[in-house]
Amino acid sequence: MEKILKALKDSEAETFSGLFEFLRFPSVSADPQSAGDVRRCAEWLAEKMKMDGFAASVEETGGHPAVLGRWDKNPGAPTVLIYGHYDVQPAVKSDGWNHEPFTPVIDGEKLYCRGSSDDKGQFWCHYAAAKAHLKAYGKLPVNVIFLVEGEEEANTGKFDNYVRESAKKLACDAVIVSDGPMYGDGFPALTYSLRGLAYMEFTVTGPDRDLHSGVMGGIVMNPAQALAKMITSLKDEEGRIMVEGFFDGVAPVAQWERDNWKKLPFDEAASAKEIGVETLAGEVGYTWLERLWARPTLDVNGMWSGYIGEGSKTIIPSAASAKISCRLVPGQDPDRIAELLEAKMRSVMPKGVTMTAKMLAKAQPVLLPYSGPAVEGALAAMEAAYGREPFRIREGATIPVVHTLAESLGAPVVLAGLGRVSDRIHGPDEHFRLEDLRSGMEFSARLLTELAGRL
Amino acid sequence: MEKILKALKDSEAETFSGLFEFLRFPSVSADPQSAGDVRRCAEWLAEKMKMDGFAASVEETGGHPAVLGRWDKNPGAPTVLIYGHYDVQPAVKSDGWNHEPFTPVIDGEKLYCRGSSDDKGQFWCHYAAAKAHLKAYGKLPVNVIFLVEGEEEANTGKFDNYVRESAKKLACDAVIVSDGPMYGDGFPALTYSLRGLAYMEFTVTGPDRDLHSGVMGGIVMNPAQALAKMITSLKDEEGRIMVEGFFDGVAPVAQWERDNWKKLPFDEAASAKEIGVETLAGEVGYTWLERLWARPTLDVNGMWSGYIGEGSKTIIPSAASAKISCRLVPGQDPDRIAELLEAKMRSVMPKGVTMTAKMLAKAQPVLLPYSGPAVEGALAAMEAAYGREPFRIREGATIPVVHTLAESLGAPVVLAGLGRVSDRIHGPDEHFRLEDLRSGMEFSARLLTELAGRL
Repeated sequence: MEKILKALKDSEAETFSGLFEFLRFPSVSADPQSAGDVRRCAEWLAEKMKMDGFAASVEETGGHPAVLGRWDKNPGAPTVLIYGHYDVQPAVKSDGWNHEPFTPVIDGEKLYCRGSSDDKGQFWCHYAAAKAHLKAYGKLPVNVIFLVEGEEEANTGKFDNYVRESAKKLACDAVIVSDGPMYGDGFPALTYSLRGLAYMEFTVTGPDRDLHSGVMGGIVMNPAQALAKMITSLKDEEGRIMVEGFFDGVAPVAQWERDNWKKLPFDEAASAKEIGVETLAGEVGYTWLERLWARPTLDVNGMWSGYIGEGSKTIIPSAASAKISCRLVPGQDPDRIAELLEAKMRSVMPKGVTMTAKMLAKAQPVLLPYSGPAVEGALAAMEAAYGREPFRIREGATIPVVHTLAESLGAPVVLAGLGRVSDRIHGPDEHFRLEDLRSGMEFSARLLTELAGRL
Repeated sequence: MEKILKALKDSEAETFSGLFEFLRFPSVSADPQSAGDVRRCAEWLAEKMKMDGFAASVEETGGHPAVLGRWDKNPGAPTVLIYGHYDVQPAVKSDGWNHEPFTPVIDGEKLYCRGSSDDKGQFWCHYAAAKAHLKAYGKLPVNVIFLVEGEEEANTGKFDNYVRESAKKLACDAVIVSDGPMYGDGFPALTYSLRGLAYMEFTVTGPDRDLHSGVMGGIVMNPAQALAKMITSLKDEEGRIMVEGFFDGVAPVAQWERDNWKKLPFDEAASAKEIGVETLAGEVGYTWLERLWARPTLDVNGMWSGYIGEGSKTIIPSAASAKISCRLVPGQDPDRIAELLEAKMRSVMPKGVTMTAKMLAKAQPVLLPYSGPAVEGALAAMEAAYGREPFRIREGATIPVVHTLAESLGAPVVLAGLGRVSDRIHGPDEHFRLEDLRSGMEFSARLLTELAGRL
């Protein structure tokens, strides 16, 4: 390992210069005008892999292409698939960046650039680690597949289709995904569960046009008030979701999880302050972390009705709409939750209005192995790289591709976030800490060795 | 009276041509670009009055000017002030007009033009009636003041100030206001009460920015849901407003009113169908007309929060807002109602959010005399003109200037709507029925004689 770590250190200039080139592509997948830049980024990455000794190809997905890299010269050794995404969120300097968003700059202890943490930089940790193995020993301890997509921020499902159709080509013994943060600042952690999503839009309609609130006020059910009542009925005073059947199949938090999470720092006052509220809120009977990770949620994401301009307009609105989404936990199915939610809304709908419902988005919740050779190997590599026992945690957010990878490839997926919550991903001044970049590379270098011995 | 009615008939061509000229001005008070047209309309009207034998002036109000006409050559006779407004709502043909909105056209039994019913045409009934008196007898039975404002549709309060400051100049024994509909189609009616208004905007704020609903969902009070809950708490399941002190001072509907209103046709199914709902709604324990006229209301006029575009965005919104207005009945004060409403909203506000409130508009409810010489005179004139006993009704809407006129001038105000609910005022194809124009003129001609004998 010393030899590999030395190789990592010796190649740092080259590692940074490669990453800088990678970061300079404004590979914004959601913007059709950037399609050319997205493709050029993929082509550059495939070319880079080839120059570094990997087999590589640009893969068509029906959307933005993926890059597939491969090193398979260790017959008999296990195969590890390393997932990343090279597409990024939009960024323009006028959003509040202190640096040009697509010109990587090291300022103090941070590397600033769109994509530095999400996800080019995190992928680069793994890529540099593999190269260090090659440099130190001329070979890798495992066979490696790099799978780097360009659709993650666009969320079209096209890459998921590609994965399903390419399962044979992508066959492996473990999948590593680094596309997120550690727990808090500097607490290494493996994530074994992600929440899913059921996202609905409801429209409540009353009169076929806006009415004069004086002429008709008093004899018409107001759709905005009807919708407010329906929304209110979805939760009780203590934050419990009141949709019949909603919790069916939700496993209680296991004792080992509770015990584990109790060791994690969570500063309620600091969290409230950070988001600018006086106090946090949520479902009674659960700790903050349980609410975030192991309990489903129900949130109004948007709501609108009637006159929303300046000043007063005295109408009874014709209709009112709300976007309502639930984050789901293992045991829940998005289609079933959508049905239950719609049924509940309909059951409490007052007379004098009608309702339509449509599903806008869905994702399965994910429960990954929290033990076994791949997980143990990753934990060992993490402890060695960070000098600290890593936690096993859940996450409250959704990464739809993780479910697809786990289901299609049938291999254990290890989620190892290398960034921090404070990296400002999706926002201005996204950055990656140099110490996290270095620790991430060391973790990955050790991980390949650990997996070689355990899988 | 025969002589006057003959004069009315003989002058019909002149009456129409004058009204057509009046209607052609696009005197849209709310559009700053139309200010010139508004003033030209006022100048034309003052000039017209002078040519017809009235003293007249264009009066500055700080907003659009008013037109003051006067005939006071009958010393010792009572003085009647006739109110109207010459400004109109915006109108462009592409809104769905079948005729050019500012080119008056008689098509079948209707005169189409913006302002034909609201309110140039209704005012013109009174103006033509006064002219017929002059033509028949060379004089009027009462002294007359025409007060025609240009700010009604702009609702700035500037004309109200003018009325308050000009009370001496406007001194009179009765005020006649024709700016609304009869009861239903062809049921003449005098209105003795209008509802007032208290219009508030509430904003509920949670986190200082939109949050990721996965990362933070479960531990943050959602402002949209908080607002929904607060709105819902304002009414019970049976439509009763649940704001403490809200009904203080509201008089129960008197037995004579109940008895009177029972005679009025109200077709629940037809009303529901006309506005496109399956069933009407409202506060239990009251008839439809009582709900519309004698009970205060509470309606959400607008509501917005979070992401309201296409598709899904997984945020917990930072804030949520609602515009909420109450129509008030005599005995209620808008400022006090605003205070009570804000107090109620604050008292049910969940932890984890804050709230701001502001008042956007207010108007006093109005209770006018429902008996006495002016009212009896108007009822008699109406019965003779329409050949049908008129009803005494309330209205659910608000005409703020009526309160100002009643309070500032200290004279009884008679509200006699000459149009119909079906006239499409404020909408495309606004029109005035020729029969209503003719009946309105006869009503006014008789009214002047009745008032001369009674006041």
